[in-house]
Amino acid sequence: MKKEQIYEFISKQKTAFLASVNEEGYPVLRAMLAPRKICGNEIYFSTNTSSKKVEQYRQNEKACVYFYKRGKIRYQGVAITGEMQVCTDQATKDEIWRTGDRLFYKKGVTDPDYCVLKFTGKHAEYYCDFKIETFEL
Amino acid sequence: MKKEQIYEFISKQKTAFLASVNEEGYPVLRAMLAPRKICGNEIYFSTNTSSKKVEQYRQNEKACVYFYKRGKIRYQGVAITGEMQVCTDQATKDEIWRTGDRLFYKKGVTDPDYCVLKFTGKHAEYYCDFKIETFEL
Repeated sequence: MKKEQIYEFISKQKTAFLASVNEEGYPVLRAMLAPRKICGNEIYFSTNTSSKKVEQYRQNEKACVYFYKRGKIRYQGVAITGEMQVCTDQATKDEIWRTGDRLFYKKGVTDPDYCVLKFTGKHAEYYCDFKIETFEL
Repeated sequence: MKKEQIYEFISKQKTAFLASVNEEGYPVLRAMLAPRKICGNEIYFSTNTSSKKVEQYRQNEKACVYFYKRGKIRYQGVAITGEMQVCTDQATKDEIWRTGDRLFYKKGVTDPDYCVLKFTGKHAEYYCDFKIETFEL
């Protein structure tokens, strides 16, 4: 498995899982829609500015992004640790916006409750059939 | 949604997700097979004693257990934060063991590489259709 293959695997998954660390030091986990953009080590998600994860990442940028596929025979998973940045600048919001997003953000692309999570991966672990490979990104 | 319904939801899911906090303070995430036992606020998993998650939980017991279901219309997720205990005592190992486990642990139920993760939940969040309900357990 090469780094490029890991990103190819990620790009095919329909669900992503994000972990943050809350104010009491507990890890917190949630499922997300697939990333909007993957570019080098950067993975972009759209979300609500008012959400708890945004509050948590603003206080502690340490993050994990996880993707997995459970087939009939084989189980594959990729866990990437790195930093999560909350982007509220209009240029980034414009870039990540899709027309259908108006369903969630009534005020459109300038809605203050719409923001972008930009994850920069540093370290990846790929699991397959009980074996682990690690990568520095 | 009542607390009992949350546990009913959990008991139907085939995959669980666990988060720990590693030695550098990053959250780390992985998929797991469904719990072996759910009893009150306690959720039990079987795993390898030599795994990184065991090492991480021994250093920092703070944990999150997550379950989700992504249907055609509705998305539901439950995130429970609490403490994870690594159990290597034979009584707990005996209780959680299943015959098929010999496939993974060649030495059987006394295999030193087989252990039990016992999670005690404190706080739960249930997400459904963009709404969040919280529960103290």
